[in-house]
Amino acid sequence: MHMAISVAVSGASGYVGGEVLRVFSEHPDVDFGALAAHSTAGDALGLHQPHLRTLADRTIVETSPENLAGHDVVVLALPHGTSGQIAAQLPPETLVIDCGADHRLASAEAWAEYYGGEHSGTWPYGMPELITGDGHQRDNLPGTTRIAVPGCNVTAVTLALQPGIAAGVVDPTDIVAVLANGYSGAGKKLATNLLASEGLGAASPYGVGGVHRHIPEIVQNLTSAGGEDIRLSFTPTLVPMARGILATVTAPLASGVSADEVRAAWERAYADEPFVHLLPEGQWPTTAATLGANTCLVQVTVDQKAGRVVVISAIDNLVKGTAGAALQSMNLALGLPETTGLQTLGVAP
Amino acid sequence: MHMAISVAVSGASGYVGGEVLRVFSEHPDVDFGALAAHSTAGDALGLHQPHLRTLADRTIVETSPENLAGHDVVVLALPHGTSGQIAAQLPPETLVIDCGADHRLASAEAWAEYYGGEHSGTWPYGMPELITGDGHQRDNLPGTTRIAVPGCNVTAVTLALQPGIAAGVVDPTDIVAVLANGYSGAGKKLATNLLASEGLGAASPYGVGGVHRHIPEIVQNLTSAGGEDIRLSFTPTLVPMARGILATVTAPLASGVSADEVRAAWERAYADEPFVHLLPEGQWPTTAATLGANTCLVQVTVDQKAGRVVVISAIDNLVKGTAGAALQSMNLALGLPETTGLQTLGVAP
Amino acid sequence: MHMAISVAVSGASGYVGGEVLRVFSEHPDVDFGALAAHSTAGDALGLHQPHLRTLADRTIVETSPENLAGHDVVVLALPHGTSGQIAAQLPPETLVIDCGADHRLASAEAWAEYYGGEHSGTWPYGMPELITGDGHQRDNLPGTTRIAVPGCNVTAVTLALQPGIAAGVVDPTDIVAVLANGYSGAGKKLATNLLASEGLGAASPYGVGGVHRHIPEIVQNLTSAGGEDIRLSFTPTLVPMARGILATVTAPLASGVSADEVRAAWERAYADEPFVHLLPEGQWPTTAATLGANTCLVQVTVDQKAGRVVVISAIDNLVKGTAGAALQSMNLALGLPETTGLQTLGVAP
Amino acid sequence: MHMAISVAVSGASGYVGGEVLRVFSEHPDVDFGALAAHSTAGDALGLHQPHLRTLADRTIVETSPENLAGHDVVVLALPHGTSGQIAAQLPPETLVIDCGADHRLASAEAWAEYYGGEHSGTWPYGMPELITGDGHQRDNLPGTTRIAVPGCNVTAVTLALQPGIAAGVVDPTDIVAVLANGYSGAGKKLATNLLASEGLGAASPYGVGGVHRHIPEIVQNLTSAGGEDIRLSFTPTLVPMARGILATVTAPLASGVSADEVRAAWERAYADEPFVHLLPEGQWPTTAATLGANTCLVQVTVDQKAGRVVVISAIDNLVKGTAGAALQSMNLALGLPETTGLQTLGVAP
Repeated sequence: MHMAISVAVSGASGYVGGEVLRVFSEHPDVDFGALAAHSTAGDALGLHQPHLRTLADRTIVETSPENLAGHDVVVLALPHGTSGQIAAQLPPETLVIDCGADHRLASAEAWAEYYGGEHSGTWPYGMPELITGDGHQRDNLPGTTRIAVPGCNVTAVTLALQPGIAAGVVDPTDIVAVLANGYSGAGKKLATNLLASEGLGAASPYGVGGVHRHIPEIVQNLTSAGGEDIRLSFTPTLVPMARGILATVTAPLASGVSADEVRAAWERAYADEPFVHLLPEGQWPTTAATLGANTCLVQVTVDQKAGRVVVISAIDNLVKGTAGAALQSMNLALGLPETTGLQTLGVAP
Repeated sequence: MHMAISVAVSGASGYVGGEVLRVFSEHPDVDFGALAAHSTAGDALGLHQPHLRTLADRTIVETSPENLAGHDVVVLALPHGTSGQIAAQLPPETLVIDCGADHRLASAEAWAEYYGGEHSGTWPYGMPELITGDGHQRDNLPGTTRIAVPGCNVTAVTLALQPGIAAGVVDPTDIVAVLANGYSGAGKKLATNLLASEGLGAASPYGVGGVHRHIPEIVQNLTSAGGEDIRLSFTPTLVPMARGILATVTAPLASGVSADEVRAAWERAYADEPFVHLLPEGQWPTTAATLGANTCLVQVTVDQKAGRVVVISAIDNLVKGTAGAALQSMNLALGLPETTGLQTLGVAP
Repeated sequence: MHMAISVAVSGASGYVGGEVLRVFSEHPDVDFGALAAHSTAGDALGLHQPHLRTLADRTIVETSPENLAGHDVVVLALPHGTSGQIAAQLPPETLVIDCGADHRLASAEAWAEYYGGEHSGTWPYGMPELITGDGHQRDNLPGTTRIAVPGCNVTAVTLALQPGIAAGVVDPTDIVAVLANGYSGAGKKLATNLLASEGLGAASPYGVGGVHRHIPEIVQNLTSAGGEDIRLSFTPTLVPMARGILATVTAPLASGVSADEVRAAWERAYADEPFVHLLPEGQWPTTAATLGANTCLVQVTVDQKAGRVVVISAIDNLVKGTAGAALQSMNLALGLPETTGLQTLGVAP
Repeated sequence: MHMAISVAVSGASGYVGGEVLRVFSEHPDVDFGALAAHSTAGDALGLHQPHLRTLADRTIVETSPENLAGHDVVVLALPHGTSGQIAAQLPPETLVIDCGADHRLASAEAWAEYYGGEHSGTWPYGMPELITGDGHQRDNLPGTTRIAVPGCNVTAVTLALQPGIAAGVVDPTDIVAVLANGYSGAGKKLATNLLASEGLGAASPYGVGGVHRHIPEIVQNLTSAGGEDIRLSFTPTLVPMARGILATVTAPLASGVSADEVRAAWERAYADEPFVHLLPEGQWPTTAATLGANTCLVQVTVDQKAGRVVVISAIDNLVKGTAGAALQSMNLALGLPETTGLQTLGVAP
């Protein structure tokens, strides 16, 4: 038996849209309907996504409420500030999954400060593994018809640190996160600093000094996990890879906590998670091991001299960081097994 | 219903072995038995293949006939010159798939000249799309219990040019092939020229001047496709990517042939192939579009001034170039649909 | 004693302009005057060329005849089709060095066919090592006040093959050249295929099938070196490096010529060249060895079975391919020692 | 007039040795004597350092006190633990410059803890810009005949943070440093994790959790700059580039200090430094801008919400991080102008 789920994708010619098509294609029940975009409407999809052979001959249609109507699921892969408008024109019973930032933040003040403009409202947050007061965010997703997919950097940092926050073994008031980021996180937009000539052989930071838009979202998550008075220094750096995030996250070791208690906190948090894997002691994550997969690899240790817990996580920004989280959340929303169609094998080397 | 096919893999801690595990994992009927290697025997697989999460806790066993016995299929991912010995100790009814070079060449003289040492014999060749006198190589695979998987460079060049050879629209006596190659084709062996410091930001040739071991295999294939008196200049070059082969192959336009006839030859050859795709006119292959997929992308044009047909093909050396070809051939040998479990979506960007 | 040569650079915020500034800075007699550009005029140079610390505080001025006037030397690093106009407004006694294509071709027909538009005329060609009927192109440069700097691909292919053409040991009627190219050759322009996300981990061809604008220039050079009825198949491919060209060039071995005669031709041609180095037998060029240097590394061999001579050359497209050739030619034009201020040590690894 | 300084280099076939040869070649007074190594002795240097054209024909000699004797300067580019022995056999009046770790640490206890084995003693430290109690380390170098060149990561972190420590505007008891590192920092040794296939497209950490050998050296330096009770969390990560270090260093803002006071501290510290450049506000360092140059680019800001000062520095690990520091220190030791022969122009893009 095949339960067909019709899925429309808006932003189909971009990197996030392309990855949604790739990842959702592996789901046994998904049938694609409209593949929509704006400036590329009318083109064959294969012109912009030559790696998606099964969809190469499909024609891109204009992003419009009419074209997106009539599907079970609509995935929006649009620049922030634009999905709110589209979503408002879709019926309430359609499952709308927003890969953009518009509906992630609960705080309208935080939205105004970091993004500017009017807040589009808050949707159920598509990070099933997020620890909440009484369980996990996955408990809040069944039956929802609106899902806000987390930011990719946010996923890497949240999954790295939340076990320590929830267990109270780290001090949440002085977190420092530094990330090595692949270029696809910046999207397909044309900018000099995103050119291959600039990126090849170079490392460079961006959004330094507390201004990056992912900060309030990380604070929101770590607060959900039980942290109070979260303070976070957050610095992403572009390095020469197309995909991947390696997050190095440190926080002060809470007073009187042993290294064994630290490790136990992470083991407990992720023992049953299908996609978040604490590696054996001594083995550290590499982004290569997550390429193309919906996995997050984590390792933790205590630096006693520095008085800090050091956690490193690796994800593929376009899968666990975006399209995989979208599909995982869709499964939960529709009452399917959470892992359906999701890949745990990375493409390495 | 699940028809379990038990598969053992020898060389499981190397790049080819790891890719066999990744690609065969996606086959609905495959169950892995022994994962064997030599110097890493006793280790958890995850130490050497951290991307293969579902197999990370499996213990690597020693490569021995005892450990490999009792499986439906044994895949050998070993250095050339070693698989002949192992294969000889496996029962004739076991399907043995050799990813190495030992059993590819029909000519013992060619083996002696290019590889040296004794020839291990010739097995049915695992390139289903290869054009033969009266059909395709896929016709020769059902029921076989021995398969020689083609070399990766060989696959890229053969699939690029064979339509023109078979149709007689190119002159086979002066072929020139230059390849851009990712580093994984060289395997996991430790050598100074394979270090990241050497490879990053650099392009360098290897095996120049008619000495590369893939030459007699390409000649053998193009002869199968109908070429006589094949002569081939072949130069691979290492470029800074982990995977992928981009082959630029040119041959003189046969006398009196039009550009339309050239295009028609390629269209006809690949119209029904599930994994070899002639792109729309004007779109050229990029290796990125094949990453992780069992696809070969091809484009062809005629350079009238130069009097040459120019063909460019792109493959993932570890998938269509090795592990995917192995699985595709296994399907044929076992009487399963040829495309079972094989991926056509690349991981890009 | 310091003989000051005042140099203005137009296009100072681009890649070629930046490299002209870097390379000319190492010349003991050069003093920079106007650093001109168009869209970046008014900015500090360091904003666009952060690697040029000694010039970081200089202000970019508008590209205008007024701003460029009054210098001993004006270097134009502009898109093709624009330098002709500017040059026409500079005094005849000013040494104008055009890094663009406008003045390279002797044939107005070739210009019309490959570039389109009106031909700006032909200037003395800035490739000192080019073999001419009775010597080298360096003999034609002293005293000139106009220099057309060669194209970077052209330099790689010409220097690779001209010894064989001049000595008559290769057949010039069926040359095949395939190049691995770094991204900076495409300049700083914003285009999707030049994004880091597209380029990282991928190889892709461009300008395939006899349409690349560097073809007539290569033909012109090889004709200068003594070739008749030159025919050339030419395919550049983008690979993940910021700089560098590795050219694999093959041509049929002329009838009755021995491998020793082939090697002797290359040895003779480059024995006294300060920047073009034939490597010891068995050692092949890598682009890494030329990074930042005005060198061209070459190796040649004979593939007897294929009946072809195979030559591989490596250059830094921005140095020997552009800015270094400009400085070397300037030295000759001004009567200075040809090697003054030019670097032969590459930056590796 | 030419004051010839004869320089011998031990470890000439490695990455550090090769860079010493490249960088010292640009010094007007340096003449190379013995080029020594061990396993490559007898080879032409060009076989191992093909980018050093002017030295390509020199023969590598065995590393022995006899071969190193009789030079004005001996540069040791050897694995740690081996230079102490060699140095002991060189005359006291020879200037010995050790690029390895053996003589950097003042504390024998720190040596024993992080490196193990016997401490070889402490030599004057080759970081001219290091702030000391009453000036800079450059004041201690004139006339010395022994120099310990700093570690590359140490240089990036020290130069990033010392202005804030010296000015008392940051709290030194909770420093967090995360680095993006190019592969050449690991040297030419053969190890699986240093292969191109592993490094291309991947980011991975090493030496995590307070065990990295550069930690005590950084603590020593920041103590020199005036810090007390230094505590440092330090995590280097390998990213796909051959050269370069991007260090993201944060420390708590000291109580009552304004953002202006922070900036003023960095401006004051580096206003007169020839090689350490604080960028204009808003411009952040990229490693590309330092490639091949003896420069360190720095930017600083205050993250008020996080309560931390964030500093980012970029260097070329082989130049400012090693060979350039060696030459700069040699100049000081020999009474030459500190900047003689040192490059400030990076090779970009």
